[in-house]
Amino acid sequence: MKHLFKTLCAFCFFASAVQAQELLSPNGELAMKFELQDGGRPSYSLTYKGKTVIAPSMLGMKLKDNTTLCDGMTVENVERSSQDETWTPVWGEENSIRSHCNEMLVHLKQDSHNRRMDIRFRLFDDGLGFRYEFPLQRELNYFVITDECTQFAMTGDHTAYWIPGDYDTQEYDYTRSRLSEIRGLMEASITDNLSQTSFSPTGVQTALMLKTDDGLYINLHEAALVNYPCMHLNLDDKNFVFTSWLTPDPNGDKAYMQSPCTTPWRTVIVSDDARDILASRLTLNLNEPCKIADTSWIHPCKYMGVWWEMITGMSDWSYTNELPNVRIGQTDYSTLKPHGRHGATTENVKRYIDFASENGFDGMLVEGWNIGWEDWFGNFKDEVFDFVTPYPDFNVAEIRDYARQKGIKMIMHHETSASIRNYERHMDAAYQFMKDNGYDAVKSGYVGSIIPKGQNHYNQWQVNHYLYAVQKAADYKIMVNAHEAVRPTGLCRTYPNLIGNESARGTEYQAFGGSKPSHTTILPFTRLIGGPMDYTPGIFENDIHKLNPNNNSWVNTTLCNQLSLYVTMYSPLQMAADLPQNYERFMDAFQFIKDVAVDWDHSWYLEAEPMEYLTVARKTKGKDEWFIGGTNGEQPRTSVISLDFLPKGKYVATIYKDGKDAHYKNNPQTYDISQQKVTEKTKLKVWTAAGGGYAVRIVPVASK
Amino acid sequence: MKHLFKTLCAFCFFASAVQAQELLSPNGELAMKFELQDGGRPSYSLTYKGKTVIAPSMLGMKLKDNTTLCDGMTVENVERSSQDETWTPVWGEENSIRSHCNEMLVHLKQDSHNRRMDIRFRLFDDGLGFRYEFPLQRELNYFVITDECTQFAMTGDHTAYWIPGDYDTQEYDYTRSRLSEIRGLMEASITDNLSQTSFSPTGVQTALMLKTDDGLYINLHEAALVNYPCMHLNLDDKNFVFTSWLTPDPNGDKAYMQSPCTTPWRTVIVSDDARDILASRLTLNLNEPCKIADTSWIHPCKYMGVWWEMITGMSDWSYTNELPNVRIGQTDYSTLKPHGRHGATTENVKRYIDFASENGFDGMLVEGWNIGWEDWFGNFKDEVFDFVTPYPDFNVAEIRDYARQKGIKMIMHHETSASIRNYERHMDAAYQFMKDNGYDAVKSGYVGSIIPKGQNHYNQWQVNHYLYAVQKAADYKIMVNAHEAVRPTGLCRTYPNLIGNESARGTEYQAFGGSKPSHTTILPFTRLIGGPMDYTPGIFENDIHKLNPNNNSWVNTTLCNQLSLYVTMYSPLQMAADLPQNYERFMDAFQFIKDVAVDWDHSWYLEAEPMEYLTVARKTKGKDEWFIGGTNGEQPRTSVISLDFLPKGKYVATIYKDGKDAHYKNNPQTYDISQQKVTEKTKLKVWTAAGGGYAVRIVPVASK
Repeated sequence: MKHLFKTLCAFCFFASAVQAQELLSPNGELAMKFELQDGGRPSYSLTYKGKTVIAPSMLGMKLKDNTTLCDGMTVENVERSSQDETWTPVWGEENSIRSHCNEMLVHLKQDSHNRRMDIRFRLFDDGLGFRYEFPLQRELNYFVITDECTQFAMTGDHTAYWIPGDYDTQEYDYTRSRLSEIRGLMEASITDNLSQTSFSPTGVQTALMLKTDDGLYINLHEAALVNYPCMHLNLDDKNFVFTSWLTPDPNGDKAYMQSPCTTPWRTVIVSDDARDILASRLTLNLNEPCKIADTSWIHPCKYMGVWWEMITGMSDWSYTNELPNVRIGQTDYSTLKPHGRHGATTENVKRYIDFASENGFDGMLVEGWNIGWEDWFGNFKDEVFDFVTPYPDFNVAEIRDYARQKGIKMIMHHETSASIRNYERHMDAAYQFMKDNGYDAVKSGYVGSIIPKGQNHYNQWQVNHYLYAVQKAADYKIMVNAHEAVRPTGLCRTYPNLIGNESARGTEYQAFGGSKPSHTTILPFTRLIGGPMDYTPGIFENDIHKLNPNNNSWVNTTLCNQLSLYVTMYSPLQMAADLPQNYERFMDAFQFIKDVAVDWDHSWYLEAEPMEYLTVARKTKGKDEWFIGGTNGEQPRTSVISLDFLPKGKYVATIYKDGKDAHYKNNPQTYDISQQKVTEKTKLKVWTAAGGGYAVRIVPVASK
Repeated sequence: MKHLFKTLCAFCFFASAVQAQELLSPNGELAMKFELQDGGRPSYSLTYKGKTVIAPSMLGMKLKDNTTLCDGMTVENVERSSQDETWTPVWGEENSIRSHCNEMLVHLKQDSHNRRMDIRFRLFDDGLGFRYEFPLQRELNYFVITDECTQFAMTGDHTAYWIPGDYDTQEYDYTRSRLSEIRGLMEASITDNLSQTSFSPTGVQTALMLKTDDGLYINLHEAALVNYPCMHLNLDDKNFVFTSWLTPDPNGDKAYMQSPCTTPWRTVIVSDDARDILASRLTLNLNEPCKIADTSWIHPCKYMGVWWEMITGMSDWSYTNELPNVRIGQTDYSTLKPHGRHGATTENVKRYIDFASENGFDGMLVEGWNIGWEDWFGNFKDEVFDFVTPYPDFNVAEIRDYARQKGIKMIMHHETSASIRNYERHMDAAYQFMKDNGYDAVKSGYVGSIIPKGQNHYNQWQVNHYLYAVQKAADYKIMVNAHEAVRPTGLCRTYPNLIGNESARGTEYQAFGGSKPSHTTILPFTRLIGGPMDYTPGIFENDIHKLNPNNNSWVNTTLCNQLSLYVTMYSPLQMAADLPQNYERFMDAFQFIKDVAVDWDHSWYLEAEPMEYLTVARKTKGKDEWFIGGTNGEQPRTSVISLDFLPKGKYVATIYKDGKDAHYKNNPQTYDISQQKVTEKTKLKVWTAAGGGYAVRIVPVASK
């Protein structure tokens, strides 16, 4: 990448003469203002097309030495510059991404302590990013942040789409409410989780989606979370002001800093059209360019897995009931009687491989393959897994050879049980074991409370670990899909081997009692702002009771809704999560999953309203092929879209849509598949059921 | 090792019929009794030659689930057995060690919770060891110990030789006082340390040495501390009852347990002759046999080091003053101006190697060789060292080749700055770097508060780390000498590559203001009960001001006291810690350090009184050569010993003793060296000064 920033001008001011500093976005529609309030207190505000998005909001830090960086500031000087570059992601929703912004770097000085703090603002046409920067200085050499005081002052009692703030999980259903209603709804929104730590009756997580009564869509999040705690937002619900709330360490400290250093970017994406929120690349643009020199080994992947049968309770991760507990390295499984419900048997895995291979999949995940699952969770057990020792009925070499022969790449599973030291101690051996056995991607898991006790999933110490695992994996040319890790913030630009994250309520909850039918209509506005999610869609059998008589869960979507997710829930890693035998009952609908691409030249956001619906079209990377996904929420509706994103030409569209009486609860498996000729002038009208959706594949007539 | 324990008899009792269970030591002089007190409360007591050593004392545990294992117990049965085996240590004070004891395993059941706990007692002629054992059971599968309730009830207001209980350091001077005086003396005894956490005004550390008014010497400690927190003792100073006080984790929990499991052994060494405390091998005998199959690469070592010049402030570990802080991997030292006081320069190291080689040493330690020392301490900095990158003026390859040519083995230094995760992350690369550059031993350091904040040096999490480092080192055939780690508990039997520990106030404190002249007359009774100490003796120049004008410390020993330590302070790793130029001024005295052995066939404890004096003779391993060390405390005295440990024959003894006006403060460097013919019938009378001592080498006349 060449020199990106062109310095437009650099002014020096006498501290006493500082006026408000203003900055416009390239198209002039966003305007921000930096100002020192009385007492030298830094603040900012933001407007969009003249409407206030962020009212004057304070900036600064509290430090462990009982001083603050919130007041007594003077502006030493302000540097202005602009950026307009286009970069090529290794994979993504687009094959090239433009980053176009104006920048203002405000150099602040606090005379009382003779120390400096800079705030860098980047204003794009789709939103604002800003971060704190601490130049190298003896007066702020090593320091501890006890609170970040960044405010996001809302202009009214907006509608928010939120999940409870929590130091350990994001696996909650979303609540839509007025800001003033959050406090009253908080308790009910904190549903049970294996590890959870809430902190405030008005604390919520980012990415937070908001909608104003005058039609603005606002998204608050962060970008490039590196060596800093994850930020939550705590609401002053009298004044509708959010303040950043960092995840603490066991001592209540937030961040250990060493200058020169920066915080992550705080982001405000804004538009009067909800589709622009989905189209925003601001989060990626605020991350550093790719740091991996050779990315040839990184590839999107469509996969199946021996997984849903365990999630539903049809089979199990564990092997035997004979052990009160396991000692890795000492427990001898070879003499133990299997309980007969182990999912990851060589035979069963081969059955999945056969099906995946016959249907053109790339990868195969197997959970529960390695010893230790008999007592893996909830015991604060240090060495819970070793990541290299298979159960007696899982033949690593045989499966390796079988998968290779069938053209399937095996995907490793590393459940850490949140025993972080144990994982780091075994990491080299575990990654090497993968390479030796033909695995080039790993799904890692962090289920349960962090070990050692006292740490949380989202504090600085843990955030550091997740990136360490990704960086070390890159050394081995291994791709990472981390579950229960901290939510993504666009780091996949810098480390594109981070091909997936969970960090939200995934499909598994459909087997844990069900998620709201609207769930996937809000995730692209929230969780996916930071990066792709391994949502694991494709569940065709709604009645989990059929798989496991002890499980009465119901999957709250229609079958076509499941198909739509392959387009609307962007991920370079897409799973067909259901069982082969369930797909075999619906092979005509399964054809869409077989066909759908996982990497794209371009994406168009055709319809969108948070928690209601979204319709997305994408062009397959390097191929004249387009897919459309329409995901609907609880209210039946008719999607009306134009195909004007197509080049002039003649095409055939294969449309998978809900049957006329479809309903996520009563009649989820009815669908219609039809073909029609289309051109760039075609308008499509597709009815979608409650919890429904549709999916379309379009190819040129010639290539049909 | 063959089947060691011969079951003498196993009785089964009805719970209601249980009488006190008694056990005698092999020679019958020690007798212990296990008894259930009212309410089914387990207790024990111990006598020596009819005198009570431990009055009835309670046993048990408190658990996290708010239940205890302290009462409601019944005795299910008692197994009795005996052991008499002789084993061969890889190195040590003896070339073979006899372990001879009677054992009683008491199986307890707590009906209220249907759970079992065993207590295993081993009674040797020199003392008692007992531990808790938790059989595999679903009712105690995973459990958390919040307190261990083991008591050691003293029979009166004994004299104790103690240092303050502390979760982070043992680097204190010893205080001799009555038990009743501990509380009043505690505050003054807690001298400053870089990391320290005291917990109780009557809390003390083990190994605790005690003396009763009727002449019993009692030592309380623990053996085989593995995956459990380090035990302190907290005194009820009204009743003179010590209770175990475990080092907590950041949540206040003590130990995470998984059955089957055991605690470390709690030990009571006792005699009416102080010399027997020193001769006891009970701590080693309670540890597991060697777990390293090939020990051929483990070797005792006499070494010098580029170290004392940094400790005194004459030179420095760091390289430059130009850095406000260091970022490993980013800071480029090659362009920085050195401050000129860096000790670990190639040239300086070569000078030390020359001197060490000329004088027959084996090894050479160099501290401050690797980048990061400019800001290594006190910043809660995560990645403080990488353990592989040298300063620009330390040429690893050149020194490797030079040392090899001169017959010197380089000793690596890994200061971790207590950043544990960082060390574990770099450990493989660091150990491999050692092997690649001819280092087969490492001195590791854990200076400062543990990172992450909230952990302590001696809790279960950290104890686990220290052993991990030793085990991993063994994989690389590397010997470990860990400083600031948890105090040793005889684990060097199981892992003989653990060739040294500090874990006490070492010689360095003589340059930090000085230690008590009696210090080395108590350490063998306390710290060394658990294993050898890298005390780093051999300081010939008392006036530190001569090395560094800004340091007014004084070494509170005579020169001959320093010589004596090579015999009295047993270690397979012995340093000649002073500078070559200081030795060059006293080459006749230095001859003793050149001559003295570091591995032994046998040892004799000729005179001993804690905090007063001790005199030890040892026979060089595999050689007709004997050494005697006499270390004296604050009172001048005449040592009178018989050489009857010698085989019948004619010998020449070379005696290094304090000059007649010697005194540690006023006249420390005066000494006499003389030779005389001796036989096994010779009695030696040697006067020793205040803070003085003497050293003797004896060889057959023929071999002189």
